[in-house]
Amino acid sequence: MEIKAAVTAEKGKPFSVEQVQLEDPKEGEVLVKIVASGTCHTDMIARDQEYPVPLPAVLGHEGAGVVKKVGDGVRSVAEGDHVVLSFSYCGGCKSCLTGHPYACENFFELNFVGDSPNPPRRIRRNGEYLTTFFGQSSFGTYALAGERNVVKVDREVDLSLLGPLGCGIQTGAGAVLNTLKPQAGSSFACFGCGAVGLSALMAARAIGCTPIIAIDIHDNRLRLAEELGANHTVNGKDQDAVKVIRELTGKGVDHSVETTGVASVLKQAVESLTFMGKAAVIGAPPIGTTVELDINDVLVQEKTITGVVEGDSVPQIFIPQLITLYKQGKFPFDRLIR
Amino acid sequence: MEIKAAVTAEKGKPFSVEQVQLEDPKEGEVLVKIVASGTCHTDMIARDQEYPVPLPAVLGHEGAGVVKKVGDGVRSVAEGDHVVLSFSYCGGCKSCLTGHPYACENFFELNFVGDSPNPPRRIRRNGEYLTTFFGQSSFGTYALAGERNVVKVDREVDLSLLGPLGCGIQTGAGAVLNTLKPQAGSSFACFGCGAVGLSALMAARAIGCTPIIAIDIHDNRLRLAEELGANHTVNGKDQDAVKVIRELTGKGVDHSVETTGVASVLKQAVESLTFMGKAAVIGAPPIGTTVELDINDVLVQEKTITGVVEGDSVPQIFIPQLITLYKQGKFPFDRLIR
Amino acid sequence: MEIKAAVTAEKGKPFSVEQVQLEDPKEGEVLVKIVASGTCHTDMIARDQEYPVPLPAVLGHEGAGVVKKVGDGVRSVAEGDHVVLSFSYCGGCKSCLTGHPYACENFFELNFVGDSPNPPRRIRRNGEYLTTFFGQSSFGTYALAGERNVVKVDREVDLSLLGPLGCGIQTGAGAVLNTLKPQAGSSFACFGCGAVGLSALMAARAIGCTPIIAIDIHDNRLRLAEELGANHTVNGKDQDAVKVIRELTGKGVDHSVETTGVASVLKQAVESLTFMGKAAVIGAPPIGTTVELDINDVLVQEKTITGVVEGDSVPQIFIPQLITLYKQGKFPFDRLIR
Amino acid sequence: MEIKAAVTAEKGKPFSVEQVQLEDPKEGEVLVKIVASGTCHTDMIARDQEYPVPLPAVLGHEGAGVVKKVGDGVRSVAEGDHVVLSFSYCGGCKSCLTGHPYACENFFELNFVGDSPNPPRRIRRNGEYLTTFFGQSSFGTYALAGERNVVKVDREVDLSLLGPLGCGIQTGAGAVLNTLKPQAGSSFACFGCGAVGLSALMAARAIGCTPIIAIDIHDNRLRLAEELGANHTVNGKDQDAVKVIRELTGKGVDHSVETTGVASVLKQAVESLTFMGKAAVIGAPPIGTTVELDINDVLVQEKTITGVVEGDSVPQIFIPQLITLYKQGKFPFDRLIR
Ligand SMILES: [Zn+2]
Ligand SMILES: [Zn+2]
Ligand SMILES: [Zn+2]
Ligand SMILES: [Zn+2]
Ligand SMILES: [Zn+2]
Ligand SMILES: [Zn+2]
Ligand SMILES: [Zn+2]
Ligand SMILES: [Zn+2]
Repeated sequence: MEIKAAVTAEKGKPFSVEQVQLEDPKEGEVLVKIVASGTCHTDMIARDQEYPVPLPAVLGHEGAGVVKKVGDGVRSVAEGDHVVLSFSYCGGCKSCLTGHPYACENFFELNFVGDSPNPPRRIRRNGEYLTTFFGQSSFGTYALAGERNVVKVDREVDLSLLGPLGCGIQTGAGAVLNTLKPQAGSSFACFGCGAVGLSALMAARAIGCTPIIAIDIHDNRLRLAEELGANHTVNGKDQDAVKVIRELTGKGVDHSVETTGVASVLKQAVESLTFMGKAAVIGAPPIGTTVELDINDVLVQEKTITGVVEGDSVPQIFIPQLITLYKQGKFPFDRLIR
Repeated sequence: MEIKAAVTAEKGKPFSVEQVQLEDPKEGEVLVKIVASGTCHTDMIARDQEYPVPLPAVLGHEGAGVVKKVGDGVRSVAEGDHVVLSFSYCGGCKSCLTGHPYACENFFELNFVGDSPNPPRRIRRNGEYLTTFFGQSSFGTYALAGERNVVKVDREVDLSLLGPLGCGIQTGAGAVLNTLKPQAGSSFACFGCGAVGLSALMAARAIGCTPIIAIDIHDNRLRLAEELGANHTVNGKDQDAVKVIRELTGKGVDHSVETTGVASVLKQAVESLTFMGKAAVIGAPPIGTTVELDINDVLVQEKTITGVVEGDSVPQIFIPQLITLYKQGKFPFDRLIR
Repeated sequence: MEIKAAVTAEKGKPFSVEQVQLEDPKEGEVLVKIVASGTCHTDMIARDQEYPVPLPAVLGHEGAGVVKKVGDGVRSVAEGDHVVLSFSYCGGCKSCLTGHPYACENFFELNFVGDSPNPPRRIRRNGEYLTTFFGQSSFGTYALAGERNVVKVDREVDLSLLGPLGCGIQTGAGAVLNTLKPQAGSSFACFGCGAVGLSALMAARAIGCTPIIAIDIHDNRLRLAEELGANHTVNGKDQDAVKVIRELTGKGVDHSVETTGVASVLKQAVESLTFMGKAAVIGAPPIGTTVELDINDVLVQEKTITGVVEGDSVPQIFIPQLITLYKQGKFPFDRLIR
Repeated sequence: MEIKAAVTAEKGKPFSVEQVQLEDPKEGEVLVKIVASGTCHTDMIARDQEYPVPLPAVLGHEGAGVVKKVGDGVRSVAEGDHVVLSFSYCGGCKSCLTGHPYACENFFELNFVGDSPNPPRRIRRNGEYLTTFFGQSSFGTYALAGERNVVKVDREVDLSLLGPLGCGIQTGAGAVLNTLKPQAGSSFACFGCGAVGLSALMAARAIGCTPIIAIDIHDNRLRLAEELGANHTVNGKDQDAVKVIRELTGKGVDHSVETTGVASVLKQAVESLTFMGKAAVIGAPPIGTTVELDINDVLVQEKTITGVVEGDSVPQIFIPQLITLYKQGKFPFDRLIR
């Protein structure tokens, strides 16, 4: 079918909206009319070729919309369903088979290179195939996704808000709820107060972390962090976050998340931990970036550092949970969406 | 009482055996006649003041012996019991109260500075108090330890072998059995084949890890690793361990332990992991040493790095378990002791 | 010293307040002036000899008060501290050493028989020793407790409210926060809405469980459950709880707690679980009571049933956490105390 | 195609080998030439209609064979591969999506009723469709299975041995390696020494459990248990297993598995646990059978009872692990196959 899509043709250039051809859903595929699509840092990384996505491509990986047609064998959604689009995974590697699709061994190829069978390249412009991004390419009027990319959601919630649940918001919230799993009453530091960081912060708030300390270099973000539940805020431009965290907590925080992708901030996120504390590495810097960690600091205090992709979420399970928390007023992610 | 002890008086100098005075066991203390004491890297670190142990001191932290006298309130051991001496912990901090004494918030002060009440300085030389090391100072004919330092052991096993169970051997074996807990059939890489590394390797073997890959720069150690169960060995002087591990395993190993305290080796221990792999940081470099890690490597593959002190062992539980495995022929740690 | 205490002299009889003699705190003991003491089912069980507590005894195991004097070696509290008194544990068994004092192998002897050294019988009436209960015997003007029984608490909170944190409230809340650890957004059923059940319910609410279903046979308790966060209530006299829960949740609840000690209710708590659901057994029936469970129901749906004593709490860690949640308005346990 | 298969036409009657018609593999299906098929208790249960499998049916659920043809979209196996056939699961329910296919919410319908699309009924006899069992119906010369049922295995191992890995052997071994995960050196009791029980016992041996206590009512099975690693055996006809276990272990065993499906034996498997011990319920009795458990025994000692289906195995991951252990001599399951 003929659709309009935002085509990214060259490194760092703005995309141009063009007429392109989308193929019909094959076995296991779902055609979605896009209602809204979030934009996150990962789209920028792809556009700027910090991650080598083959261009030209149609980006967009936080789509929300309505199912228009399903291919053979699709059972989890049907025409008319409201859906959020999330990441692709292969379903057959060790990570996928054991319930960890976010650590899919084929994640990079499926989501960034777009050359897999689930779905492969399905968008053409003047006969030339364009790269599919995150198995969806949601910057278009319609998107063709695999069944594994598609999450059926509650029709009572405004669909135009839900796209970012498919990536940025589940990434932050999941790092807390799925990975770190803090005990109620344990302490938490959030490095970076963009959408991902604040999603982590709201999740920490929802399950009773205290104190919650938010770190950023923009005062307006810190004010929002406070409104969303931070007990303390630190402007990293003016203050030494590690020092402030130690003053506030005594020995450091039980859990931290690093969402900025800045190596020196990750260093702080580790240094600010207490004994047996855990840091979640969420923010992706340019490929090749390294962090320098003090070995004895990690060793002697038994700290743990762990990478977290997509919030360790199984989207079909986790996104409906987040929507439930939202409806209860415990996870006001709409505050993050202008 | 009058005893003989090896006194370390100056940085980097050999100790001298001298006549010193040991006090009587107070409430909660145990007097042990030392039968044998292991020596590990940590004694050297203390002697060389890489860790600031106040000198003069009596070092030694892998003692084994026979209980001669117990102070009031001691219930877990009695005169005549065979015991291994292990590390000190406070018993009252959050880590201790929740069953993680190896992450005691007062570990450094209790084990390296020796100025705590459990026991405090109890050895004198010409009236001057000497620093107690690891709550035991086992380089003497007798040692005075706290009840928490003392582990009652099976009398049927040769006591002169058991000292290193109190530190080096439990450190390596515990990192596997208590921390990483590999599934039978999962892959394992051991960086460094000294006593700690080979203890980890034997533990991995005992619970069915495969393949087991041993890395060192000494061929004789690698031969011993092979005899103890390594399926493959890599001499890091000649070969790129990360490359070899990838060739052997496809995507990398599920678990690795770093026992050398060399930053570049730790880097390899992390790089050689597969998706969702875990690296245990065991080897202690000089204070201030840093490691440089590739952030995307940790993030995208969801790797975990964790510090492990004393093998995450509760000595009173874990040392008897190791002795049981030894008696079954599954943990031949006597092979490590010349 | 001379104190007044409520002495229970005979099975099933009311206690009588009498003048008794309390000894001085020895090594490791703490003298507490009692400000308030909760009463829970366990006191009744002891009085009625369902559990064989040797009489005469001074009962009371949910004391709160102010430290008046400490014995030698006590470090965690000092004169003037506000404290809650909790259960006794030996500190030396496998459970205690690994951070699970609530599963102390000597729990029964220490808490119900009172004949242990920590502390032993320390109260006399006319020269005859009375049984100490839960290492405290808080139904008196003063109590003598072991350091392990004593939890220092925030002075800003009304001390007269805090006694029940030492047993009933930590039991319910801990079964949720320490044992079941439900994911935010998972479902929860609370069988029995007394203080223990409602504490579990408030904890489930605090960490985002939904829906929360409360079951009891008293409408007034169900109304309170609703005020404290239940989404649905079921009066077990009028309705089949298992059926209602299946109607509300589809396949059953993820987690349930049984707090009534009634075998048929425990059966329901297991039957109402979904696949891989977990039931916490909290309520203690008379010794010898059995429950009849359908084996295939447990097997095929991979259900788990687990006993939980004292909420799997390390009181020194958990009670301050509960007070923090209370101060944030997330755990209004004062609603349970008239 | 025309094949020969063992048709079960009536309750309790022996099957008859007949000529039947097998359809071609559709999308996602795999045609396997059967080399061998194990028989386990579950086939008998189906034949005897203790579980209501619609008859006529072709039973058999432990097939091993060679792939002859694959349908569209099948990627994990190809013609000529050696495969083991295991259970069916839906891939889309909460259990499946989170990596727990053995707790699939559609397990019963898929494996026992055979009326699902993956694959549906695909065998005919004189035009009439026969029920497919466990998505395979391996009692035939060929079987048609879904890709999720099929596990590619090492060609170096004798294929005719491998069928039981797909059910009975993974069930026993997995209950230990995937569910209970005993610490090396912890104690283990195996109730029932058939193929499932002895698989559990061998797994416990492979990872260093000790002591291992085997219970059965047949001396020849107990002798085999001893050869495979039991430290002690108990003939339940002559001795009280709970009493013997307490004598051998002091407080009871850390882990037990119940493989007989007899309620009174399950009761023993729970009673013989120590503090914080765990019992795995594996044996399936006739539908409706109940077990009577002492509530205080479970509560006070914090015991856990949990149902385990198919050894909590993801067959594609676990069966190759078992084959690796077999090749190392640590899991001699061929001893179970006459
Ligand atoms: Zn995958
Ligand atoms: Zn994104
Ligand atoms: Zn401590
Ligand atoms: Zn050492
Ligand atoms: Zn204990
Ligand atoms: Zn109570
Ligand atoms: Zn399923
Ligand atoms: Zn079977």
